[in-house]
Amino acid sequence: MNDDVAALARRMMQRLDELARFSDEEGKLTRLYLSKAHAEAARQFIVWCNEAGLDAKIDAAGNVFARYEGKEPGAPALMLGSHIDTVRDAGRYDGNLGALAALAVVEALASRGERLDHAIEIVAFGDEEGVRFPTTLTGSRAYAGLFARSALGQKDADGVTMREALAAFGCDPEAVTALRGRNIAAFVELHIEQGPVLESEDVAVGVVTAINGASRFHATVKGEAGHAGAVPMALRRDALAAAAEMMLLVEQRALSEDDLVATVGRVEIEPGAVNVIPSEARFTIDIRAPRDEQRQRAVADLSKRLAAAAAARKVELQMTQTHEARAYTCHPAIVAALKASVERTYRAPARLLPSGAGHDTMIMGQFCPAGMLFVRCNRGISHNPAESITLEDAEAGLAALIDFTRRFSAQAAPSGRATS
Amino acid sequence: MNDDVAALARRMMQRLDELARFSDEEGKLTRLYLSKAHAEAARQFIVWCNEAGLDAKIDAAGNVFARYEGKEPGAPALMLGSHIDTVRDAGRYDGNLGALAALAVVEALASRGERLDHAIEIVAFGDEEGVRFPTTLTGSRAYAGLFARSALGQKDADGVTMREALAAFGCDPEAVTALRGRNIAAFVELHIEQGPVLESEDVAVGVVTAINGASRFHATVKGEAGHAGAVPMALRRDALAAAAEMMLLVEQRALSEDDLVATVGRVEIEPGAVNVIPSEARFTIDIRAPRDEQRQRAVADLSKRLAAAAAARKVELQMTQTHEARAYTCHPAIVAALKASVERTYRAPARLLPSGAGHDTMIMGQFCPAGMLFVRCNRGISHNPAESITLEDAEAGLAALIDFTRRFSAQAAPSGRATS
Repeated sequence: MNDDVAALARRMMQRLDELARFSDEEGKLTRLYLSKAHAEAARQFIVWCNEAGLDAKIDAAGNVFARYEGKEPGAPALMLGSHIDTVRDAGRYDGNLGALAALAVVEALASRGERLDHAIEIVAFGDEEGVRFPTTLTGSRAYAGLFARSALGQKDADGVTMREALAAFGCDPEAVTALRGRNIAAFVELHIEQGPVLESEDVAVGVVTAINGASRFHATVKGEAGHAGAVPMALRRDALAAAAEMMLLVEQRALSEDDLVATVGRVEIEPGAVNVIPSEARFTIDIRAPRDEQRQRAVADLSKRLAAAAAARKVELQMTQTHEARAYTCHPAIVAALKASVERTYRAPARLLPSGAGHDTMIMGQFCPAGMLFVRCNRGISHNPAESITLEDAEAGLAALIDFTRRFSAQAAPSGRATS
Repeated sequence: MNDDVAALARRMMQRLDELARFSDEEGKLTRLYLSKAHAEAARQFIVWCNEAGLDAKIDAAGNVFARYEGKEPGAPALMLGSHIDTVRDAGRYDGNLGALAALAVVEALASRGERLDHAIEIVAFGDEEGVRFPTTLTGSRAYAGLFARSALGQKDADGVTMREALAAFGCDPEAVTALRGRNIAAFVELHIEQGPVLESEDVAVGVVTAINGASRFHATVKGEAGHAGAVPMALRRDALAAAAEMMLLVEQRALSEDDLVATVGRVEIEPGAVNVIPSEARFTIDIRAPRDEQRQRAVADLSKRLAAAAAARKVELQMTQTHEARAYTCHPAIVAALKASVERTYRAPARLLPSGAGHDTMIMGQFCPAGMLFVRCNRGISHNPAESITLEDAEAGLAALIDFTRRFSAQAAPSGRATS
């Protein structure tokens, strides 16, 4: 059995290398939704499904599906998979690992003619990253019946609408809003962590408890410019010094609670000369937490603290919210089952952790019980060609997913949404 | 007497308005060294000197001089003046006020045929701002015998060398290095404050005690990029958060002592995306103080504190010094005499303050005893068309300068340099 999984993991890693060749940009991996590279990758994925004895099909949103029946045809299905689109100049594991792991799980069963009480639906979603069009997670959103018709009019950088791109891909754009999967008992996604937690604790596989909600703000601080030599410190209203104080307040607030993270990722100042006191500073704040209440409390606290800092320094502060996404709590029964599978196959206590990045699971969780497994990645790097995982860790993730799939019971997972 | 000064101040303000018309750029005041506008302004200045009965001449560096003899021809001279070049899109008072105030002082004496024991040399230096060529303070530097021959080869933005520009202005470039003023007992410059101190204390005129020395650095902080959602706070090496802490250390150190100022005027970060932890932050530090020892102590302290902050956060810090200028302590006898003149004419205790900006006085102080008077300016604004002073304040400054000139004794001011 372990030899089987090792062989499957090796083939999965080879396929990830092969799939990485399908790119819209020479010399790097860039595979945008509904692009030529996406079509090529989908075709290759279908070939591999066919080789495993499965029929595969593409839905109106460009998602690839292949079904492995259970003992009884038409049984409720456990859906496994992830997405096969990438960011620009991407790594080869983000998304693609989950789609190929789903296929490997079926191959593990099919190779011995093993049928379960439930079916398995493999999925390779077409858009998760949202690089080509303004919206993200189009693939799972459409499958979950959450696609907004207005998205069809969105244009890519070349002025091509999503409607036109779908038609060029061979899909019927008018059918996308009518999509909604059926008879799915649960969705489980295997994905690289995209963070350093598992690596820092020397653990190969983790079980995701929740996908962080996020709030984003643009902050603008207005002070007064002045001569860097001629204005005494006590008479200054330095916009950058005020912003620096606020950045540390953001960091301190996030450090004060487990699982809360906050980031200032951009800053720009005016006028930006070595000998002039800055008159204006603009910066972004990104706040995430696995629980909405936790995030909202942090946002409220920070709004007060930053306003107080601005008042004390006699500078103006404007904060504009630019993004808000709710957290998704993974389904407790799925989390418990994944945890048990990890402990059974990995033979150590399973690390439970929230996901800071967004995933198809957070959309699928609005449609059916859902959960995720994380595989350790090198230095937490993703969205970068340096993204990497080891064969051993891929095998550990796959072994846990196979164990989970074998033991999964469509009856045991309460249907419907389980959110915070 | 007061009526005379009021009339002279009014005329001085009118002349400042007239001089502001000589610009290299339409619709704004930009008067670069050795430009057409500079030639026109110098010519106008000479016309006004001639109208006051003085001969005027232009030296090899493009500086304008006019001499008002004392009781005995050839007596040591008190030099009064400032510069008539400007920054781009400048105000009309920076520099020009001091040159026209010097002329007004002579007019105050000449109108009554009043001759002193010393002569008066009026000067309108050609370059203080250093906008056209890389070097600053070329006018006073040349007059003080401190001009470096290599500067002749410097090019402006159009590729014109200073040598060519001098020749086009009618000067002999080869004679610049041989310049050195003679028989000057002292130099005094009237200038707008370019800071908010006098305004904040409701005082029209101040006496400068020292011109700040300055040290400038480029700091580069290197941390590690990461996903803004996926990297827990405790595992981050956020270059911007580290830089923000350093910026506050810079501010706190400057706040801890009177007269010390420090400014972070530029900041740039990489990669600069709302959802990515910054991997690199680059910022400038400008530290100034009226005493070199004070500034050097602050620099040494900050170097240690920033290094400690970097070590605590496990980020790399590189600091490169980009500029170093020593402080100039105004001549004590000149400061005392200016203080007495302000108190006599303004009838209030004189405000003594350091200058944060550089001035011709700091070069002239290497050549003869030197000092400065500051006139309050609106909101401390300079290097900007919004630069402004009131007629009343101009009159107060002029009255103090006339009083100082009348009472000045070439014998009382020890010759030679008086520096920190």
